[in-house]
Amino acid sequence: MPEKLFKVDLNKTMDKQDVPGHNRWHPDIPAAFSVNPGETFRMECLDWTDGQIKNNDDPSDIRDVNLERVHVLSGPVHVNGVEPGDLLVVDILDIGTFSAHEWGFNGIFSKENGGSFLTEHYPEAAKSIWDFHGIYATSRHVPNVKFAGIIHPGLIGVAPSQEMLDEWNRREEELVEQNPNRVPPLANLPTRESAVLGSLQGEEFERVAKEGARTVPPRENGGNCDIKNLSRGSKVYFPVFVDGAKLSVGDLHFSQGDGEITFCGGIEMPGWIDLHVEVIKGGMDKYAIKKNPAFRPGPMDPHYNEYIVFEGVSVNEFNGKQTYLDANTAYRNACLNAIEFLKTQGFSGEQAYMLLGSAPVQGHLAGVVDIPNSCCTIALPKDIFTKNILPE
Amino acid sequence: MPEKLFKVDLNKTMDKQDVPGHNRWHPDIPAAFSVNPGETFRMECLDWTDGQIKNNDDPSDIRDVNLERVHVLSGPVHVNGVEPGDLLVVDILDIGTFSAHEWGFNGIFSKENGGSFLTEHYPEAAKSIWDFHGIYATSRHVPNVKFAGIIHPGLIGVAPSQEMLDEWNRREEELVEQNPNRVPPLANLPTRESAVLGSLQGEEFERVAKEGARTVPPRENGGNCDIKNLSRGSKVYFPVFVDGAKLSVGDLHFSQGDGEITFCGGIEMPGWIDLHVEVIKGGMDKYAIKKNPAFRPGPMDPHYNEYIVFEGVSVNEFNGKQTYLDANTAYRNACLNAIEFLKTQGFSGEQAYMLLGSAPVQGHLAGVVDIPNSCCTIALPKDIFTKNILPE
Amino acid sequence: MPEKLFKVDLNKTMDKQDVPGHNRWHPDIPAAFSVNPGETFRMECLDWTDGQIKNNDDPSDIRDVNLERVHVLSGPVHVNGVEPGDLLVVDILDIGTFSAHEWGFNGIFSKENGGSFLTEHYPEAAKSIWDFHGIYATSRHVPNVKFAGIIHPGLIGVAPSQEMLDEWNRREEELVEQNPNRVPPLANLPTRESAVLGSLQGEEFERVAKEGARTVPPRENGGNCDIKNLSRGSKVYFPVFVDGAKLSVGDLHFSQGDGEITFCGGIEMPGWIDLHVEVIKGGMDKYAIKKNPAFRPGPMDPHYNEYIVFEGVSVNEFNGKQTYLDANTAYRNACLNAIEFLKTQGFSGEQAYMLLGSAPVQGHLAGVVDIPNSCCTIALPKDIFTKNILPE
Amino acid sequence: MPEKLFKVDLNKTMDKQDVPGHNRWHPDIPAAFSVNPGETFRMECLDWTDGQIKNNDDPSDIRDVNLERVHVLSGPVHVNGVEPGDLLVVDILDIGTFSAHEWGFNGIFSKENGGSFLTEHYPEAAKSIWDFHGIYATSRHVPNVKFAGIIHPGLIGVAPSQEMLDEWNRREEELVEQNPNRVPPLANLPTRESAVLGSLQGEEFERVAKEGARTVPPRENGGNCDIKNLSRGSKVYFPVFVDGAKLSVGDLHFSQGDGEITFCGGIEMPGWIDLHVEVIKGGMDKYAIKKNPAFRPGPMDPHYNEYIVFEGVSVNEFNGKQTYLDANTAYRNACLNAIEFLKTQGFSGEQAYMLLGSAPVQGHLAGVVDIPNSCCTIALPKDIFTKNILPE
Repeated sequence: MPEKLFKVDLNKTMDKQDVPGHNRWHPDIPAAFSVNPGETFRMECLDWTDGQIKNNDDPSDIRDVNLERVHVLSGPVHVNGVEPGDLLVVDILDIGTFSAHEWGFNGIFSKENGGSFLTEHYPEAAKSIWDFHGIYATSRHVPNVKFAGIIHPGLIGVAPSQEMLDEWNRREEELVEQNPNRVPPLANLPTRESAVLGSLQGEEFERVAKEGARTVPPRENGGNCDIKNLSRGSKVYFPVFVDGAKLSVGDLHFSQGDGEITFCGGIEMPGWIDLHVEVIKGGMDKYAIKKNPAFRPGPMDPHYNEYIVFEGVSVNEFNGKQTYLDANTAYRNACLNAIEFLKTQGFSGEQAYMLLGSAPVQGHLAGVVDIPNSCCTIALPKDIFTKNILPE
Repeated sequence: MPEKLFKVDLNKTMDKQDVPGHNRWHPDIPAAFSVNPGETFRMECLDWTDGQIKNNDDPSDIRDVNLERVHVLSGPVHVNGVEPGDLLVVDILDIGTFSAHEWGFNGIFSKENGGSFLTEHYPEAAKSIWDFHGIYATSRHVPNVKFAGIIHPGLIGVAPSQEMLDEWNRREEELVEQNPNRVPPLANLPTRESAVLGSLQGEEFERVAKEGARTVPPRENGGNCDIKNLSRGSKVYFPVFVDGAKLSVGDLHFSQGDGEITFCGGIEMPGWIDLHVEVIKGGMDKYAIKKNPAFRPGPMDPHYNEYIVFEGVSVNEFNGKQTYLDANTAYRNACLNAIEFLKTQGFSGEQAYMLLGSAPVQGHLAGVVDIPNSCCTIALPKDIFTKNILPE
Repeated sequence: MPEKLFKVDLNKTMDKQDVPGHNRWHPDIPAAFSVNPGETFRMECLDWTDGQIKNNDDPSDIRDVNLERVHVLSGPVHVNGVEPGDLLVVDILDIGTFSAHEWGFNGIFSKENGGSFLTEHYPEAAKSIWDFHGIYATSRHVPNVKFAGIIHPGLIGVAPSQEMLDEWNRREEELVEQNPNRVPPLANLPTRESAVLGSLQGEEFERVAKEGARTVPPRENGGNCDIKNLSRGSKVYFPVFVDGAKLSVGDLHFSQGDGEITFCGGIEMPGWIDLHVEVIKGGMDKYAIKKNPAFRPGPMDPHYNEYIVFEGVSVNEFNGKQTYLDANTAYRNACLNAIEFLKTQGFSGEQAYMLLGSAPVQGHLAGVVDIPNSCCTIALPKDIFTKNILPE
Repeated sequence: MPEKLFKVDLNKTMDKQDVPGHNRWHPDIPAAFSVNPGETFRMECLDWTDGQIKNNDDPSDIRDVNLERVHVLSGPVHVNGVEPGDLLVVDILDIGTFSAHEWGFNGIFSKENGGSFLTEHYPEAAKSIWDFHGIYATSRHVPNVKFAGIIHPGLIGVAPSQEMLDEWNRREEELVEQNPNRVPPLANLPTRESAVLGSLQGEEFERVAKEGARTVPPRENGGNCDIKNLSRGSKVYFPVFVDGAKLSVGDLHFSQGDGEITFCGGIEMPGWIDLHVEVIKGGMDKYAIKKNPAFRPGPMDPHYNEYIVFEGVSVNEFNGKQTYLDANTAYRNACLNAIEFLKTQGFSGEQAYMLLGSAPVQGHLAGVVDIPNSCCTIALPKDIFTKNILPE
């Protein structure tokens, strides 16, 4: 185990940890510790909700979740000598669970509180608890499936510069203004409520809380990209916007399907992640990796290679209206088609929906130019099912 | 080689073939021939443009392409005893090139004539010719790459019922009416110009041409899904809407990247495809495969497993405006990020763009719920490059 | 299709072809044609037995096969400018079947005529005919299996120098002298009977036939290596022993299991193979590839990834005698264990044996140092079976 | 973490542990604890040599190793209700390292003490220390390589019956008698010296030590099979020979190449393994899994798919003598060919040899019937090298 460590106590919320992390993006959140390029360190993480979801059969905690608390992140870590314009190269060496907490959760958020990708079809909150058996997960709430997860951090990112942060706030405010009362909202703006900002206190806390961007959306700094293949052994190239880069991580997933469609989320869990950092000086210009991170996936995904694939096209499923190449509608229809099929195989709609959010399913953009219909696909590995589900 | 055959002469356009195919969807286009469930047959195909694109260095044929001619399809094939409500199970046994035509083309359509996924960035027509060397493709127009293609039909589908066809026409007309003069158009409506309708003639031809849906968009019948993994060895489950199913196929691709982002297209080619059909009586209800086909990919994709991946989020790249979870914008940004990186590796923007359209690159939906930003990724296999392109 | 071609007529034996090939190794067999480095050419091939095996249910042709006729090879091809000390780099661009001959055969040779790996257990001749369905093979003689083959040449090699040939003959004669009457023999020595030597005639024919090494064993020149992963897309580095290298190829397999344990063999077939050649001048010393070829497998094997694996150790199965690390005995026991298991799943012993010779099964050396027992494994892909065979 | 646990203290040898394990096979070694079918438990393991090898640059500990001490195993575990004739189904749920011991060792045994596969070529002891970086290993003794290991137990097995044990001793004694003074010996017979036999003491200890089979060879009970793909997620079917099956495990490898050719061994380490057990009553007859275990590999091997492959045939490399189909000689030559190539890429012979023993290289039996030459191959993943090693 690396000597340098961001430590968490599973019995305390993030603000009560000896060295608290944060749940907002801001360049002025102080670093938890510093490392040199070439160093390896371990980040222990709480689950993204800060422990709000319990291992039981009652989804009311999902329904009533305090979303202003998310995502509680570990960090930031200051990397010595790294400057704006550099690329921070982060190796994800390994990720694991805590032996005292070998389970995770997936949930469908209520339309009234968060919503989800299929919220018009599944507006009620639901929850599934997943037990870990080494590399495998099973759930008493979604029977007849067992799969090896692609363990990964749903969220990993560096701090924005003040200018970048201001831009984020501007563009998200403009969006919300288009429909300020929408449920679920178009975006979550900065809020002091439930903010955790490392060791900041007093006036500095108030200023940063007022400006600090919410962690839900992925942005130029990486952040909550929910990329399931950013797994063990991956190498990430982050553009750097502030001195020391200020790397943070959290939202660990034991597994997740492409899209994280139930919103809460993959199989969410606390755990640890070992990171190694290097720097490519001036790398942002040299490789034109400026707008978003790039990465190389690791070599250890489970080799599920036999799939059943469902297609969707971009015609609205409620009113039959033709959209113009809307990939969201296409992927939504692909997911709905998969769920309808799974309902013929003994799953309830909610079970099928949570399975698509949890298992290593592949969501692909197939055709994005064939006007007026996008085509997206969702691919389910046949070997995650404990009995044959293929049409015969 | 199977005895039953849809034959094409590469020196004639589709309407001049002994048994002509078609380039519109309509239930009343007569079958080219009939088969029984359990039979295997070969469909020879022209390239999707009906031979308009030449093996030379001049992109004017791409620029001036007659899009009312596309896609010229082989078929339809009537499968005896198959009825609406059944599933038609189609095995794609093999696909190949003609020994007299071992090259294909990729092109960026002009914004004025067709457009493409990045048409605001790359409005001018461009062309790349790809030479086939057994399982590999290379291009004199995109040097320093060589890859094994995932050969597949860009388009395979069954005939719509009259009711379904009417619905298609209704919804697409409504879309066009929103902005009838848009360039490129929002949709392509039925047109008599350049229609090819099998053996139909006279009044029947006029009626069907007037109603026949264009083949560009994927729809409930499958059609132009451009799914690169619908390759050799795949098994497709088609919902059936008319007696005999009326299966057609065309738009063969030697290779294609997810999204077929240049629009023209993958690596487009004439060739042949061997199909085997079976039926699952009443399968549409039994498996709830009603709205779109489902399929199992074949076992013979090239095993490219080392990738460099670029991310994109759904903020408009021109005006910095925040969209609400727009996956198209996210994937567009991912593609642009990949292209900017490739420009640091010696490719021109157009070369990089055509490479993303041609090579077996993976386009994934990563997160589709993290309001307000979708995250999409595009993954390039490192081993398609003949020299190392990884940042170091 | 490449212009340069070694052509075969399936209705004639190899000696009757317009340009006959050969079935012995000798530096003085004249080249069929010449190519330059950088050229691509096609080699059409007869099946290894020169058409002795028929598509019927009677194994007497296997039992009575004339083994002095094997392997009929296409070539040799002279590569201009290539000299001893160079590496000849051969790309296997593609391999295919003839549309007039879409079947192949596997057979267990009789102990009295050829024998096989398990000849003491299965001394009688048997035959299975495999039908090709695009990329898949099935057999009326081995029901309930269907698999995608890893198509490959069982035999590809360059000509030996005279010195190398003399050495081969010396060492094989010495071996045979240890037990000259053994059945099957310890080795097959040169014989004039049934020799085919390209265009040689008269005295030259007699001389070369007398010296020409049999093609059965793999040797320093490559030859009959029966490596199933030397498939489409592979690149082979051959050490060169004579001017022009003199490349020959044959013994095409639609598929084969590691070891080719039934001896006849994989799924044997006539067909064609497209090759491209380059040269690395002085490469034998530069890369120390002197004793045997090296190669890079192609990217298009079927991705069968779920296996059931059987182990074997090196204790003689008849008398319980302990060998010292004998890997042959270990692999033989692994094969026998697999066959005994398959007999519980409805296969006869002969069917199971032929399946292990035909399907893409993996034979691994696991431990070769754990005195006194070697351990070898044989891995069967579960998805080649049309019903579940896993213990439950 | 499972509650049931075989615990080890890394600062004590196996005989000094609170609950000691064993290093001999015998039905009368008492169980460490009992479990029920359906239970999960953790086995902590010492390295196979019982801590004899140190993390330094001096190979004298490899040279002078006490081989009578190996392999120290954890267990046995008694599975309630399991009887001879059943199959014990063992799921390997996960395997990991101790955070206090994140390194392992590979070594070439001296010809005078143990020997190795290439002992005639490399008779001197050598050692390489491998550092673990999450899923990756590197070595200061073998620079320019970095790879993800296929972590696995080199040794896992059940207890033999008394009859089986007697048979082992008989056959191995007979072998040794053929050449009792050979160096290295033909087999290791039972010896009291350094025996560890769980809680046995006094007369019982003496009796069992005298009879207890050495753990080096793999046998009918599984044991030291050194199968690298018996990794995380695997399911093993063990034939059962005694009541309770008496399962033991040890010799954990962070990684190993097929054959474990240096003998010491893979990358050897202490660590932990989580197991789950079920039973198939009467399964030995039902599935004919009687002679050796069978297994299904797990889904989490690193997806190294690009290889360079070296071939070897069965001609003795010292005297040019032709063997009859000797796969050991063929694999030895393949290994030697790979080493000679690696020497042109900057590795010493010893480094290359230790790399082949440590990295996930594939050893295949290619052809085992092509008299008189076997052909074996060894395949090195190109992506384990930090610079390009392919001939160009």
